Amino acid sequence: MTTIPAFNPPTRILMGPGPSGANPRVTRAMGAPLLGHLDPEFLKIMDNCRDMLRQVMRTANDVTLATPGTGTSGMEAAVMNLVQPGDKVVCGICGYFGDRIAQMAERAGGIVTRVQAPWGSPTDVAGIEKACREVGNVSLVTMVHAETSTGVQSDVPAVSKVAKAAGALLLVDCVTSLGGVPVEPDLWGADAVYSGTQKCLSAPPGVSPITLSAAAWARVKAREVPSNTWYLDMQLLEAYWGPARAYHHTAPISMIYALHEALALVLEEGLEARWARHERNGRALQSGLEGLGLVLHADAGYRLPVLTTVRIPEGVNDVEVRGALLKRHNIEVGGGLGDLKGKVWRVGLMGESSTPGNVLLFLSSLGKLLREQGFSADVRSALDAAATGLAAN
Amino acid sequence: MTTIPAFNPPTRILMGPGPSGANPRVTRAMGAPLLGHLDPEFLKIMDNCRDMLRQVMRTANDVTLATPGTGTSGMEAAVMNLVQPGDKVVCGICGYFGDRIAQMAERAGGIVTRVQAPWGSPTDVAGIEKACREVGNVSLVTMVHAETSTGVQSDVPAVSKVAKAAGALLLVDCVTSLGGVPVEPDLWGADAVYSGTQKCLSAPPGVSPITLSAAAWARVKAREVPSNTWYLDMQLLEAYWGPARAYHHTAPISMIYALHEALALVLEEGLEARWARHERNGRALQSGLEGLGLVLHADAGYRLPVLTTVRIPEGVNDVEVRGALLKRHNIEVGGGLGDLKGKVWRVGLMGESSTPGNVLLFLSSLGKLLREQGFSADVRSALDAAATGLAAN
Repeated sequence: MTTIPAFNPPTRILMGPGPSGANPRVTRAMGAPLLGHLDPEFLKIMDNCRDMLRQVMRTANDVTLATPGTGTSGMEAAVMNLVQPGDKVVCGICGYFGDRIAQMAERAGGIVTRVQAPWGSPTDVAGIEKACREVGNVSLVTMVHAETSTGVQSDVPAVSKVAKAAGALLLVDCVTSLGGVPVEPDLWGADAVYSGTQKCLSAPPGVSPITLSAAAWARVKAREVPSNTWYLDMQLLEAYWGPARAYHHTAPISMIYALHEALALVLEEGLEARWARHERNGRALQSGLEGLGLVLHADAGYRLPVLTTVRIPEGVNDVEVRGALLKRHNIEVGGGLGDLKGKVWRVGLMGESSTPGNVLLFLSSLGKLLREQGFSADVRSALDAAATGLAAN
Repeated sequence: MTTIPAFNPPTRILMGPGPSGANPRVTRAMGAPLLGHLDPEFLKIMDNCRDMLRQVMRTANDVTLATPGTGTSGMEAAVMNLVQPGDKVVCGICGYFGDRIAQMAERAGGIVTRVQAPWGSPTDVAGIEKACREVGNVSLVTMVHAETSTGVQSDVPAVSKVAKAAGALLLVDCVTSLGGVPVEPDLWGADAVYSGTQKCLSAPPGVSPITLSAAAWARVKAREVPSNTWYLDMQLLEAYWGPARAYHHTAPISMIYALHEALALVLEEGLEARWARHERNGRALQSGLEGLGLVLHADAGYRLPVLTTVRIPEGVNDVEVRGALLKRHNIEVGGGLGDLKGKVWRVGLMGESSTPGNVLLFLSSLGKLLREQGFSADVRSALDAAATGLAAN
């Protein structure tokens, strides 16, 4: 006999590197009746998403849409469409995701120069400048605005200046920053910017916002060979999202519904207010973690408010603590990725998950578990420091 | 001031080429609380999906999973992972989607031979045999089981025999067939089979079931160059779905929830019963359309029950009729694609949309509109023929 498994996912407090918690209005939207992907009513919803994406992404770029896949699909679309075989690409890398971009650029046939920075420091601007000079004729510079593996925010305007001087386009990964910290493609002069929905936009994962500057779009249209990918070919995607409305794929209808409502919530809150909320809660968490006696991993001055990496103290068992957080407190945080595996925890405060209550609950729960592990966490000091930060306007 | 657009999608009767209507249990599942993509509870849900996918796809293949994108992502995963630069690929084409496979195989660096059949006829088995002989050393034969552009079902076992004789692997697109008509990768000897969720599985679009035979998996693992795509690299996807649980992408959590419940519904109904339901309703519709005085486009003997192409009579305006179906009757059907644009309508009866009520409502609504257009549709005869078909056990 066939056994049908039960379906009853538990409710978690999502404080990992994503997904973050979704607003009920967003998940409810996914329950709306399905429309055909060429239904005039669905096309209106796509147009509304486009308009709202431009507002949330602070860009006037024509080519602004959502690729039909999770954040990595936005990365793949950006890289595979902008890199042609033989193109010289300089990749600023200060964590896991910067290197993922480099790997994709290699698959696209690019000749990649990696400019490495320590995992915990920002993108090496001087190193990129030097590489551009040494390599010559660089066509694309890539970087990660908010490195999800390290909790570091890099200086996009500085890299942009270097890329412009080298005559290269600039690709910026904003998966973890969009909706939580200022993302400004037009001000920056960034040519390709993409994000995900499951971080500071607080929708489920499944589509990826992306925007291309006029220069990037001209590059894509002037390709001599088609991009490696058919599914994420930006010319085919734009033909569907734009006025041509040419069938390419069956849009992930319910995910577009979720995106629509997530963007509406961002605009209703107001971008500036939302950034301020993330800043306040994130800094309060960081003060609290230091209050516990822990050490923040990312370089001071470059710490993201939306994702904090904190070092696991000597003698404390990574897996046990994360397991207990999940099982006893229902809280998810992330473990270290790549080089930082076993060395840090990654604590997200993104979108709906960025609340004062989550800050205090997490510090209190973690403090208790650390004490059980023999680390003398100062919970009172942590909560006091966090509460002070939360009270700041 | 920012204007936030309202969100209120209308309820449609989805009788196009997909998406089909979703069962409320499936859409409700998407409202369940989000879990992290590495949460043990989410991994259990993935494992359950895998088990159910194997049952619904009638395969014992280890490598059975859902790619994080709509049906076309399954196609891209299958093609880009199985084709290496210089590989000889023979593509059986009898419609739009067969050619899409060929285009992808070219982007993967394959040397493609297209074996064309008329749009309305099945895959040309003899033509593929001849091509395999002439080309020599063919590594992959591709075909579409259920061609969504023409409503034709092709003979997979016959093509499989030819591919085996040529020493080639066989890729079969089952986007429109899975869950509606028998799909039997193991019986067929098919090496790569993929589908979509928004057809006969009746979930929203957004993930794509795929299964690879041991031979296909060995081919993927033995690649000398990585596949074109990073996002849909089957080795990376399998590392996440399989016991290694290595992070690759943030799974589209809510879509996996939807898939879970859609598969459960298929198994609860029973595959044989589900096939019989699709068969009965589809044949009733086809009898009814002939009763109206219309001509079915696909060759007799190769007509899919789940998707019917019917010729638009001389003097009848395609766009007006489809527009009125949508606006006045709330019914979506598809227009012709590619060569069949303006020549046929595509009427789907898939998953939840495959009901006797939809058959009768559609025939009655279409009959009325045809008469308004000056075509003397015999509605009484159509409904009588359909009702007879629906009553048949």
